[in-house]
Amino acid sequence: MLLRTKILDIEANGEYIVILNQQDIEKIGFSETGRVTIQKGEKKITAIYNISKDLQAGIIAVYRRVAEKLDLKEGDEIEVESAPQPHSVEFIRRKIKGEKLTKEAALAIVRDAVDNKLTKPELAAFVTALTTMGIDLDEASYLTEAMVETGKKMVWPENEIVLDKHSIGGVPGDKTTMIVVPIVASLGYKIPKSSSRAITNVAGTADRVEAIMPVELSLEEAYEVVKKTNGCMVWGGNLDLAPADDIFIKIENPLKIDPLMLASIMAKKKAMGSKYVVIDIPIGKEVKIKSVQDGEDLARKFIELGKKLGMKVNALLTYGEQPIGHAIGPALEARETLEVLTANRIEADLIDKATDLVATVLEMVGVENAKQKALEALKSGKAGKKFREIIEAQGGDPNIKPEDIPVGKYTSVIEAKRDGFVILIRNSELIKIGRMLGAPTYKGSGMIIHKKLGQKVKKNEPLLTLYSDNLNKLEKTLKYIEENEIEPMVIGDKLEMTLKKISYH
Amino acid sequence: MLLRTKILDIEANGEYIVILNQQDIEKIGFSETGRVTIQKGEKKITAIYNISKDLQAGIIAVYRRVAEKLDLKEGDEIEVESAPQPHSVEFIRRKIKGEKLTKEAALAIVRDAVDNKLTKPELAAFVTALTTMGIDLDEASYLTEAMVETGKKMVWPENEIVLDKHSIGGVPGDKTTMIVVPIVASLGYKIPKSSSRAITNVAGTADRVEAIMPVELSLEEAYEVVKKTNGCMVWGGNLDLAPADDIFIKIENPLKIDPLMLASIMAKKKAMGSKYVVIDIPIGKEVKIKSVQDGEDLARKFIELGKKLGMKVNALLTYGEQPIGHAIGPALEARETLEVLTANRIEADLIDKATDLVATVLEMVGVENAKQKALEALKSGKAGKKFREIIEAQGGDPNIKPEDIPVGKYTSVIEAKRDGFVILIRNSELIKIGRMLGAPTYKGSGMIIHKKLGQKVKKNEPLLTLYSDNLNKLEKTLKYIEENEIEPMVIGDKLEMTLKKISYH
Repeated sequence: MLLRTKILDIEANGEYIVILNQQDIEKIGFSETGRVTIQKGEKKITAIYNISKDLQAGIIAVYRRVAEKLDLKEGDEIEVESAPQPHSVEFIRRKIKGEKLTKEAALAIVRDAVDNKLTKPELAAFVTALTTMGIDLDEASYLTEAMVETGKKMVWPENEIVLDKHSIGGVPGDKTTMIVVPIVASLGYKIPKSSSRAITNVAGTADRVEAIMPVELSLEEAYEVVKKTNGCMVWGGNLDLAPADDIFIKIENPLKIDPLMLASIMAKKKAMGSKYVVIDIPIGKEVKIKSVQDGEDLARKFIELGKKLGMKVNALLTYGEQPIGHAIGPALEARETLEVLTANRIEADLIDKATDLVATVLEMVGVENAKQKALEALKSGKAGKKFREIIEAQGGDPNIKPEDIPVGKYTSVIEAKRDGFVILIRNSELIKIGRMLGAPTYKGSGMIIHKKLGQKVKKNEPLLTLYSDNLNKLEKTLKYIEENEIEPMVIGDKLEMTLKKISYH
Repeated sequence: MLLRTKILDIEANGEYIVILNQQDIEKIGFSETGRVTIQKGEKKITAIYNISKDLQAGIIAVYRRVAEKLDLKEGDEIEVESAPQPHSVEFIRRKIKGEKLTKEAALAIVRDAVDNKLTKPELAAFVTALTTMGIDLDEASYLTEAMVETGKKMVWPENEIVLDKHSIGGVPGDKTTMIVVPIVASLGYKIPKSSSRAITNVAGTADRVEAIMPVELSLEEAYEVVKKTNGCMVWGGNLDLAPADDIFIKIENPLKIDPLMLASIMAKKKAMGSKYVVIDIPIGKEVKIKSVQDGEDLARKFIELGKKLGMKVNALLTYGEQPIGHAIGPALEARETLEVLTANRIEADLIDKATDLVATVLEMVGVENAKQKALEALKSGKAGKKFREIIEAQGGDPNIKPEDIPVGKYTSVIEAKRDGFVILIRNSELIKIGRMLGAPTYKGSGMIIHKKLGQKVKKNEPLLTLYSDNLNKLEKTLKYIEENEIEPMVIGDKLEMTLKKISYH
């Protein structure tokens, strides 16, 4: 039936919500799903309806997202109908009953998720069933392809060599991507890199890059950057790649389940048109993957899933027991990166990891002496020059100097309480401290770590310098460290086997 | 923080929803769960918040259910705080990961469900994990006890013998409960029976009983009825027994999963204080349980779960291939029942099934010649007298006669198209027809089935008389039957083995 819109400036966590009069909903016909379809011109969405007795008959009150999606103006006439349960729920049911997902089922579910036709409980049932029943490689490939198909894509010529890199993440200070992309691009290969912001860490690659240049480019803009410079470093959130992923993640995060990890990573790579991908899998006590064995299993899954998708994948298991480089936090890491790229600053672990990843992906396309070439590109300043080209193409200042990047103006130094060697660095504590200082929201917050594992340290030598944009946050953090006797870096005699004694109070 | 209420007359499928101003929600503190707790005096609930820029700061707009639950008046001042994710989500996660539910976990989840602290996706994840991972008897007993504990209960003296009966259902025309309860009560035993309304069938027991007497009694009212008459026949929906069940069912129904079937049935029996229970498990091609083997498995689960709960359970597997008695539909079945109870009408299968169930539960408490005693109570008019006592106690007219019960005034007869014997009755088609005629919403709608399995029939003899309260519905139903060549009753030569030939078109 035709109803006239009244627009409410209310936002409900991205959901499409409308309010209907009791009589109107009776005329429209009760929907088992509690949903109606709303159409204006060619545009049609499915929305949750609430019922009001006060609302005038003939009027549909719509939340802001509904108005935005359909370009509604106050008083517009729109077509409202009862929405049936979509057929894809039957496919979800079959997965719950233990059947494997077919290609058709995966596409129907993912498409209906993207079109907002599935309710949150239906989505939750789906991701839970994927977690408890597991998904095999075929199912993962169907889901990946469905996620790609229902989002935007970069299309490259058939013969274009498009490389990419992805890290499973978790290591603080890991600015490797910002070194890898300019090296690869400077050597003449395309690398359209999209990254995420930090969810639980101090900085995500998108946060780090943003301290130097704009990252919220559209897919079309990012495409132009890559065409011009061979590379880009943009935030994935604005590209509309695999939009199903965001929908599933909103449901999965509160449940702390992640059944679609491989599928969503590979979907984003495939949507960017990448053909050769190197996966960085950090191994360590405080990152996602704790053992080399688990890392190998995961690597093999990536490789096999890649094959099903027509992509070549290699993986590197990397050391994840301590931060990469010395800087942690968006702006501090951006400074360090710029120094490594343009001022020959030596951060041995960062440079080694970045050039190993470059070499791995270059060897996949037949480049010889790849490690040598990667190091050469860095040392010669070729990569730094390329980095400035990318900055300019993304809309930043290509002449930016490290000291132009503002860092937190409030600082405090944590000193060593004894002589000895750094025998343990607690990444999880560094991350907690970094977030208490205000990162990633406050870009200048974070820390410089002055000593790394195995290094000698003297009593009262600085171990960490904390930075914050906010004095209050710095003080709270210092209080937290003191009151809880937090030791993010543990000092012992060399080769000491006891890390900490836990006493009974 | 303290906010002033503005009440919105909006209803969102039973959910608690509030609208907050953007600035206020920043002050309250962002909640990962998208929820706030709202408190007025001693009453506190958890609600979903939507965000509005238009709403004045300091105001919280609340949907109707919130106002009702907290007794809010326009302009009341209430305390609003950010709601954390409840700890029970961790227990849901553990079930997803394959751990068994502990007693503590089951209670925490069920309590938070009842207190509206779990989001719908969290509830969906839970019931999905129960379905895919399965639940063992210990888990089922923990869930049952948790459901009982979080709802209202009838408490009987220790030495009181309290009997009960439950049917898995699915057979049209099954008015057995209305015969069982007055017989048991007339023999001096307590039988506090609660029943449900039809969800997918033509009538549920509560619908049938309601054609004769009020059924929407409170727990306290039902208790008084049982104290006075030994029995009651009330709708479970008003008793607030195991309220978690309704919450889970709302999530399960759209997914067509039912992992808590045993737990929710037993929870309701236990909450009514029943100590001896007979379960009726109809077996047939078109009911839930298709084979004797499956029926035995289910019976054993009920018996074992009963043991864990300190209840004695027996089960009868019953013939479920055709309707019980001849009437289908709330009012028509009520008439038939009243005739059997008070006018010596003989419905052989109905009487046999009802007295077998009575005998089974009486034998559990040591009654000898129980079947004989049950038949005697019926024939002597003792059960009929008890039935009228219960009608009066529940607030109905104890002198009601069968013809006082209004049935649909529009009727139509379906005749046999050939001579022969009834070789198949399609329960699912009878149910579909009954619902098209308007049942259970229109109480007078339904049908009388004139011939049963194996009976001889002549061409043009009546097979079915359809009843409807609504001419339009009757015409639509006849059209459906004709156009689709629906044969709810199949006639063949005796012992014919072919039921129907399916041709390729």
